[in-house]
Amino acid sequence: MDSAVNLVEKLASFDEVFAPRILGYYNENKVMVGKLKGDFVWHSHPDTDDFFLVLKGRLTIQLRDRDVEVSEGEMFVVPRGVEHRPKAEEEVHILLIEPKGTPNVGDADAEAAPEVEI
Amino acid sequence: MDSAVNLVEKLASFDEVFAPRILGYYNENKVMVGKLKGDFVWHSHPDTDDFFLVLKGRLTIQLRDRDVEVSEGEMFVVPRGVEHRPKAEEEVHILLIEPKGTPNVGDADAEAAPEVEI
Repeated sequence: MDSAVNLVEKLASFDEVFAPRILGYYNENKVMVGKLKGDFVWHSHPDTDDFFLVLKGRLTIQLRDRDVEVSEGEMFVVPRGVEHRPKAEEEVHILLIEPKGTPNVGDADAEAAPEVEI
Repeated sequence: MDSAVNLVEKLASFDEVFAPRILGYYNENKVMVGKLKGDFVWHSHPDTDDFFLVLKGRLTIQLRDRDVEVSEGEMFVVPRGVEHRPKAEEEVHILLIEPKGTPNVGDADAEAAPEVEI
């Protein structure tokens, strides 16, 4: 990373939802932006927490025992091993951090989005 | 973390500069917000990258060979071992991520801010 990375500009460069793009790396983690709309799959990440920061819109992170509402300018960390399902009625833009090699679908029986750097 | 954390609200709860507060943890990392104004000390972190996201204002990260300007909505990762000095003419608000136990002054001969959770 030679210079600062503008999140809004990077988000404007793609339309696909549930397919986060990699902006750079922090230690062994991918720093990503993503767009979500609709219901994702229920999943968990057995070996890692899952960091979400909402940049635009409103995200619901369903847990098995409750829903966590995450509005613009708010963050939430899903602890490792905790089943969750992100969902959004309207398109939401997020900053996500996950260790390299973490599939976005976690342990779900679903195809993971490819890891794409932008 | 039982519910979402609002970054602006947390930033409004303290005034001190160069003394980031801990909002929560992502794996073995502290997720923090901080306020900067003026020149920090030159330092590096031999064992970790240093993640900055500017939430408000404009941050200059001086490196030995150039300055990196980071505006609101932009991020920059200082690679491990790279000497840097954050500076800000006007107050800047940032999201910072560093491994637990990382002093904010890195290897500089200066007193580190205490680790405070809010």
